[in-house]
Amino acid sequence: MTSSFVRIEALRAHVGRVASVRGWVTHLRSSGKVAFIVLRDGTGVLQSVIVKNNVAPEVWERFQQLTVETSIAVTGELREDARSPGGVEMSAVALEIIGPSPTDYPIQPKEHGVDFLLDHRHLWLRSRRQRAIARVRNEVEQAIHDFFYERGFLRVDTPILTAAIGERSGLFATEYFDEGTAFLAQTGQLYGEAAAAAFGKIYTFGPTFRAEKSKTRRHLTEFWMIEPEVAWNDSNDNMRLQEEFVAYLVRRALDRCAEELKELERDTSPLERVVPPFPRIAYTEAVEILKKKGSTIQWGDDLGAEDEALLVEDHDRPIFIFNYPKEAKAFYMKENPEDPRTVLCDDCLAPEGYGEIIGGSQREDDYDKLVQRIKAEGLPMAAYGWYLDLRKYGTFTHAGFGLGLERTVAWICGTPHIREVIAFPRLMNRLAP
Amino acid sequence: MTSSFVRIEALRAHVGRVASVRGWVTHLRSSGKVAFIVLRDGTGVLQSVIVKNNVAPEVWERFQQLTVETSIAVTGELREDARSPGGVEMSAVALEIIGPSPTDYPIQPKEHGVDFLLDHRHLWLRSRRQRAIARVRNEVEQAIHDFFYERGFLRVDTPILTAAIGERSGLFATEYFDEGTAFLAQTGQLYGEAAAAAFGKIYTFGPTFRAEKSKTRRHLTEFWMIEPEVAWNDSNDNMRLQEEFVAYLVRRALDRCAEELKELERDTSPLERVVPPFPRIAYTEAVEILKKKGSTIQWGDDLGAEDEALLVEDHDRPIFIFNYPKEAKAFYMKENPEDPRTVLCDDCLAPEGYGEIIGGSQREDDYDKLVQRIKAEGLPMAAYGWYLDLRKYGTFTHAGFGLGLERTVAWICGTPHIREVIAFPRLMNRLAP
Repeated sequence: MTSSFVRIEALRAHVGRVASVRGWVTHLRSSGKVAFIVLRDGTGVLQSVIVKNNVAPEVWERFQQLTVETSIAVTGELREDARSPGGVEMSAVALEIIGPSPTDYPIQPKEHGVDFLLDHRHLWLRSRRQRAIARVRNEVEQAIHDFFYERGFLRVDTPILTAAIGERSGLFATEYFDEGTAFLAQTGQLYGEAAAAAFGKIYTFGPTFRAEKSKTRRHLTEFWMIEPEVAWNDSNDNMRLQEEFVAYLVRRALDRCAEELKELERDTSPLERVVPPFPRIAYTEAVEILKKKGSTIQWGDDLGAEDEALLVEDHDRPIFIFNYPKEAKAFYMKENPEDPRTVLCDDCLAPEGYGEIIGGSQREDDYDKLVQRIKAEGLPMAAYGWYLDLRKYGTFTHAGFGLGLERTVAWICGTPHIREVIAFPRLMNRLAP
Repeated sequence: MTSSFVRIEALRAHVGRVASVRGWVTHLRSSGKVAFIVLRDGTGVLQSVIVKNNVAPEVWERFQQLTVETSIAVTGELREDARSPGGVEMSAVALEIIGPSPTDYPIQPKEHGVDFLLDHRHLWLRSRRQRAIARVRNEVEQAIHDFFYERGFLRVDTPILTAAIGERSGLFATEYFDEGTAFLAQTGQLYGEAAAAAFGKIYTFGPTFRAEKSKTRRHLTEFWMIEPEVAWNDSNDNMRLQEEFVAYLVRRALDRCAEELKELERDTSPLERVVPPFPRIAYTEAVEILKKKGSTIQWGDDLGAEDEALLVEDHDRPIFIFNYPKEAKAFYMKENPEDPRTVLCDDCLAPEGYGEIIGGSQREDDYDKLVQRIKAEGLPMAAYGWYLDLRKYGTFTHAGFGLGLERTVAWICGTPHIREVIAFPRLMNRLAP
């Protein structure tokens, strides 16, 4: 009997023929005369049936030795079966044990605490739920690249190791040869601005770092951020790009991850409503709305998570809050000419309690105003020489934003904590595995 | 007169109409009655013509004030012109200066030393050559994602901050809360192996770090690496995937970056020959070839750059050298059952003097052999507990490799030093801008 090794994702094309599949046992069941093996190989799930009287005695013998997570090769004829996971079932005639799995496999079909699961993240990833999340993340990442590629943006990989620059608290530091201390980038934005002047439309896609003692379900010390920057875009263009981008990502996940979202028991109806335009609320207006709702917020305060929730609850899709007070925001944001107490910026807040997924702004393009802001914030002027050059030599209107990948994927998946949507999360008390 | 703001890449669709373009001046020329402005906006290059007698005096006046890198808006009718860079020329009727550029603009049309250029990397990126390189890099990056997406690989983002693991010298270290010291990842491979057992076929795409005092044209302290890992692939499958992958990337660049490669004066005929299969030379055979060529190499020595060049010179495309001596390679490579002095691994060497662009191997899947190797190398066993779990619970044949992005792009572009193919290179003496 000839057979070929096939991945489960490709089995449908082999129906009616004999094939071999390699993978890991996830479920075992036997009536004494008929045995069932459910197998996963990462690309899909396959049920194999072994009928005792149809196979050699050693095959039936080997079945008795199987445990969950044993790696095996099974060979048999494939037939269509609408009730089976991948629409295909195998009548196994051969079974080979590749790697046994001791019965102390840590993850059992019962409730485990999240710390235990995170300690065994390398094995936890094998679960159906974690695979579904990983597939949604993969789809969103590819969608991000496709979105920008189709629109003529250049991807620019900005440095992780940087001299003192950007937001200054919560930095990871490392010795850098004779150059002193290097800091792990919290953003690629300033570099992105230089690249936008060179290439017009760019985006970054990389890890960013915050050495902050935050223990919320929305914080990681290492997370991935996507930061587009566009020459000649103003704050309005910027919000238009954001809503188009977010809607594109959600649509891609809905269109291509229906099975995964079902596995995650995600109610997709709120996602179906994520269509531009997103409501836009000026910060000053937001404060009035919040006061009417009983909040004690005063003009000038930053919005807390509760305030954000009060604003989002009136809408059926993400919203923008724009033009915050200057003091609440970073030095590089452009002063609002119509109200210099504020800057031309926005936060995009996701519904269903997920909150901020994007922060964006038009950048200060006035050399003198930028120098004033750097001084006012006590930042080291020398480190910003090259950044000021972008205003000295042909300054230009430009705007950009940063989308938090894990927050976005967590929202699309409907997972309560963002630690589940990255393969090996880094939290203030977790550096392993 | 109405006009709309258009990016240069999209101007062809506006021929016969009036449009406005914003960008930076790259060249100026005037006969006294007719003036020419060459403008770049990152998406393309446009020549505008101003005829003194056809425009308002203040427009002509403003032209006199222009300098290189001044940012401007020009408005006028567009007409086809085959001799012009983008096939379009503008008859300008309006000109607005947005941001002047002082005449001390650092980068002048003369030879500059590379240290000077790197000190002004934020401005150097604006040159035609740097833009061409950035566009090739962008194309290669998108091609990488497309290659794996089309083949059902999941992208997995492995951590940068890691506990002690992997190769041990040349690590950047940082304090990590109460968890002790974290090290910046030199590879995502070990995590990729865990993910391959969960998802079947995966790849990583991220920055990696080497705190090594290397000052060659092939070394950066921070560079981007792509690391696929495939469950059930052996070393032969692994080399097949590598040659298919490399050929795909080169083909994409040839097909979609013809203009950029021309700008870089790249002779594309060697690239046209990059088609599988790539020649495969066993290490042991390579030693014999080198001896015949007069090398003093002995079996057991690692191959130096000169040895590699001697091997590559006989071939017209990349080659594989496979199955190196165990002592020359990392602990996780699988012992060769047919010659236990060697391991099942390969290096892929690019022609034209570019050398190693890929290192790959089948991974040791035998628990006991792996424990022995970890002990023999004096690595901290406790840190590898989770990695050993992958062999304890359903061990599996698997293989993967790491492709250096900058080395690959430098080869495709034909640039002598890899520092030119990343936006803001990090070298042992360079942390800024």
